[in-house]
Order: sequence, then C-alpha cells, then structure tokens
Amino acid sequence: MTVDAQILRALRQAGEAPVSGADFAEKLGITRAAVWARIEDLRKLGYDIHASPHGGYRLRSAPDLLHADDLLAVLGLGHIIGRDIQVFQETTSTNDVVDKLGRDGVKEGVVVFADSQTKGRGRLGRHWISPGGKGLWFSILLRPPLSPQSATQITVAAATAVARAIRHKTRLPSEIKWPNDILVRRKKVCGILTEMSAELDKIKYVVLGIGVDVNFNESDFPVDLRSIATSLKVELDHSVHRAELAAELLRELDADYHRLLGGKFEAVADEWEQHCTTIGHHVEIAAGSRKIEGHAESLDSEGALLVRTQHGRLERIIGGDVTLRA
Amino acid sequence: MTVDAQILRALRQAGEAPVSGADFAEKLGITRAAVWARIEDLRKLGYDIHASPHGGYRLRSAPDLLHADDLLAVLGLGHIIGRDIQVFQETTSTNDVVDKLGRDGVKEGVVVFADSQTKGRGRLGRHWISPGGKGLWFSILLRPPLSPQSATQITVAAATAVARAIRHKTRLPSEIKWPNDILVRRKKVCGILTEMSAELDKIKYVVLGIGVDVNFNESDFPVDLRSIATSLKVELDHSVHRAELAAELLRELDADYHRLLGGKFEAVADEWEQHCTTIGHHVEIAAGSRKIEGHAESLDSEGALLVRTQHGRLERIIGGDVTLRA
Repeated sequence: MTVDAQILRALRQAGEAPVSGADFAEKLGITRAAVWARIEDLRKLGYDIHASPHGGYRLRSAPDLLHADDLLAVLGLGHIIGRDIQVFQETTSTNDVVDKLGRDGVKEGVVVFADSQTKGRGRLGRHWISPGGKGLWFSILLRPPLSPQSATQITVAAATAVARAIRHKTRLPSEIKWPNDILVRRKKVCGILTEMSAELDKIKYVVLGIGVDVNFNESDFPVDLRSIATSLKVELDHSVHRAELAAELLRELDADYHRLLGGKFEAVADEWEQHCTTIGHHVEIAAGSRKIEGHAESLDSEGALLVRTQHGRLERIIGGDVTLRA
Repeated sequence: MTVDAQILRALRQAGEAPVSGADFAEKLGITRAAVWARIEDLRKLGYDIHASPHGGYRLRSAPDLLHADDLLAVLGLGHIIGRDIQVFQETTSTNDVVDKLGRDGVKEGVVVFADSQTKGRGRLGRHWISPGGKGLWFSILLRPPLSPQSATQITVAAATAVARAIRHKTRLPSEIKWPNDILVRRKKVCGILTEMSAELDKIKYVVLGIGVDVNFNESDFPVDLRSIATSLKVELDHSVHRAELAAELLRELDADYHRLLGGKFEAVADEWEQHCTTIGHHVEIAAGSRKIEGHAESLDSEGALLVRTQHGRLERIIGGDVTLRA
C-alpha cells in the first residue's frame, strides 16, 4: 500500500476522531513534515481534510474522483477483486488493458478503471459510449478454475453483484436482463462484457468488463438510445458519488466471486433468478443467425438460459440478444 | 505473391519442362538480368535450379528448408489456410506470434512457422521441445463462426487432417488419441494445441498450434519421453522432407477446415473415429482434479468425447489426459 493509501485508510477508519500527525509519522515511518506534504497533495485533489492545531487530521469529505489509493483504502485487505487497483485518465478500452495484464501473467483480482474510454466496447464489438466523469468503466482480471463452457457463471455472478450494489447504494429497483445487462425501470444502466483467453478445456483468464451509466443526463445519450438506456442520475434525479459506488460494486463483486469459487454458484443463480426480468417471460433470442422463441424457464448449472420452445423442446442458450414478448 | 514465389511457382508448374528467362522476364515485368539474380539467390538457399543456355531454367530439387515463398508457390491460391505464410528462424512460441496477429485483426488463414521455438508449449502450459531443423512447429490463425463450446470441432478437424497428411506422405499408420495427439505405433509424433480468444457465445479467433516431431533421432528425446514419444524419422528409418510434409499438412488442414465451415463436421468426425485409438476402448481420463473411467463410445456433434462410466452414465468430456486401460 502506498503512503497515500495508508493515510486515507487511517482517516477513514478513525471517522470523526482526529488522527494526530505524530501518529501518522510513527505508523508510516516518515516525518511529520512529510505527512503534512502528503495531506496537502490530497487536499489539492479535493479531499477535504480538516487539521486542528492540537487534535490532528480528520477527513470531512472525499471528491467524486476515482483515486486508486483511496479505493484501496476504502476496500481494505483480504479480498481478491480489488487486490490491486489502477485508474487511467483515458484509455482505449479497460478490457484491452486488463487483457494485456492477463497475457503478462498478472495475478487475478486487479481492477482497471478509466475515467473515459476512446474505444469502449460492448458485446460483439459494439460501441460503448464512455465519456469522462459520467460513469464507471472498469475491467477485472480473473483466473477462475473453470472450463470455457462454464464461463457464463462469471457473467451471472457479476450481474447479481452489480444489481445488488446498485440497490444498496441507490435504492433503485435494479433488474437483470439475461445474460449481461442491468436495467432500471426497463432501461439499461449497465452492461457486462465477459471476454476470455482459453484452451479447449481450461480458461487461462477472464476479462470482466463493466460499464455503468452513473451521472449521464438524458441529453448525454444519443437520441436513438434514449428509449432503451438510462442512468442512475436520471432515475434518481440527483447525481451519485462514483467512488463510493465503485467501492460498493467491487465489494459485492468480490463477495459473489468468492461464492462461485466456493462451489456456491447455485445460491448466486437463485438470487440472480429473483431479480431477473427474463425468467418466466416469453422471449425471442437472436443468437448469431439463429432465432429462438419460447418461454424462459430457468438457468442451468453452468449459467445457460433454458428456453422451452413452442414445440416443447428445452433449448440451452449461452448468449444472444433477448427481446421480451407480450 | 513475391517475385521469388512466382519464379518457384512457375518452375514447379513446368516440372521437367524448362522455363526460359525471356518468359520469366515478361511475366514478372523485370529484366532477364534481374531474373538471373533472383535465381542465383535461390540457388544459394539450396534450390538446385539447372540452366541450359538455350532451353531455360528447370528446378531439379528443393532444399529441406522452410521457405515462405516456396510454400506459397507449392500451395497455390484459393485456400484459407496458407493464404499467407511467415517463417521465423526462432521465436518464443508460434502460438504467441499468431495470438498477436489475432489481436491485431489479421484475416484468418495466416500460418506462422518457426525453425525453432525457445518457449514451445503444449496443453496446460507444458513445455514442448522444439529444436531447429528437427520438426515442424507452426500455428494457424482461424476465425470460425463458432461458439467457444464448439471449439473442440477445430481440434478434431485438425487431428483428422494431420493424421491423413502423415499417412499420405509417409505411409505410416498414424492414429489419433483424443483429443489432440497423433500417434504412430502407440507413440506420440504430433501434438495439437488449440487456444482461443472469445466472448461468452462467440469465438473471436482460434490459434491452432501444431508440432510434429519429424526428423528427431531417438537420442534427441529426453530419456523419460522415449517410451511415449517418437518421430517420423525413427519410425521410417529415414528422414522426411520437412517442406514437402508442411505443404501436405497445410493442404489437408485447409480441406478439413472447409468441410467444417461447410457444415460437414459429421463427415470429419466419422473419419476421425475410424483412425482414433480412443473410441471403443476402456479409458481413464484426468480432467483437472477430476478422474473419469469408462468406455469411450463416440464423439458428439461438438467434438466432445462421450464416455460410459461403470454406473452406466454417459459423461461428456471436453478435454483431459487419456490413458488406455486393458
């Protein structure tokens, strides 16, 4: 952990209680003047750190800014997802950055955020709008001991965690649209893109990309998307602190990844089904050149969607574009 | 096509008939002196090109050398695999080189050979011995319109094609060991490594890596491998022209890839089963931490192995290490 991360962590843990410069200096093994200099730098970033001459330092508020050290401080230790965090001002696509880390053999759990992406992408190479300051665009490196056939489990766990984090943080009624969208009031606020590098029977690594439309105004969306996309701000009528939401997302993602690794995918899938708009509905699914229509019955143990067609056959669908039918 | 490739192609098409310098100069749009200079360079590489003062040029023999232009000349046009060929003297792993081409959006069909690899690898990151001049180490970039679930089809098609090419070229009784080895007299002569980059429901690209132990002497193998590995030279008692074998391999691989793309995977699978040592035997399969024992019955439509366990259940196996049992 960097000095900044340790300072922020100590301030956050102390809450209303001030932390003295002497305490910092001793814990961090630096001079009180050096502590003062770090605090001054954090203040320049927008951290409102109050200093009383005899009492010490107190964090009054944090800026709506993605700061790797602060996210690490908020999350604490002992988890996989968020073990290491990097924040870029701008990148092509956070999935590309994390893919490179995966090839380079970096340990799982690293998270890469970008304030903005110049080539953000969704499923099948579709463009993903990701302007600066308006959303959370991040990717996570995972190395689950799964076959490529079971990779859908990762998307299911991620969707469950993201939907829960949004509910906790905003109280909005977030729902899941199979396989990879999070909706609020039938409009998309978040997309999940799972990419992997694999041998036939073994995943080498997964890049889990997540994009959340946090503080978009309605006018930030292209006209043709306004009927199907929304943001947390539009739905709440006020903006959301991105860094706080980011921490909540990473916490919940880590929790569900642990459930999955611990062999508790069924519990995740149960929660997923409770919040899913797809299960129990008549759906039409376009998967490549194929179209399947039927009743979405449930998820199977690998995360595939089981659809009963009009001929009574149960089809196992691993991906595609879902449309709800009346 | 380069000038060298065009010269070699014309010489090979003419066979015993000489091609005049004037013909070359006209076809290639260069001077007769320039033709002469190219021929001289080819001779330096070991191409035995006979020149008669009035008759013209004739190719008497080609060196046992991997030459991209000559492979392109031998293969001709109109195929996918071998559309473009690159030959490296040495590389880490040809799969790494082709993976990079895949990421860069290069069209499918490009083949990368290396005379030797410093970090050749087999399944699950195992080391693959790949010394210079002794074998064929190459990788092919493919972009099949398949889901990751069906990627085993690629390995099945590749194994079928490689086994056939070895039979054609050497008359050796090559057999397939599911999922990815080619054996001669129960010893491995070739391994196939299929790696992919994919979204959940769509392959972005496949890197098909193939390593053939062509001209190893028995003493070239580490002692502990001598009971399970062999080379074409050891089995034939004479060496094999690597470039000719390479051309035959690419031709057959292209043929089976076309069968697969044309929806004829079943025909490929039928041929595969005829030459497979695994089907019809009692096998033990180690797949990760799992061990499955039973009777290997057949392949399914996606290329997975169907094994009937002692409890009568049919298990669908997508990869693993197979041992034949008595």
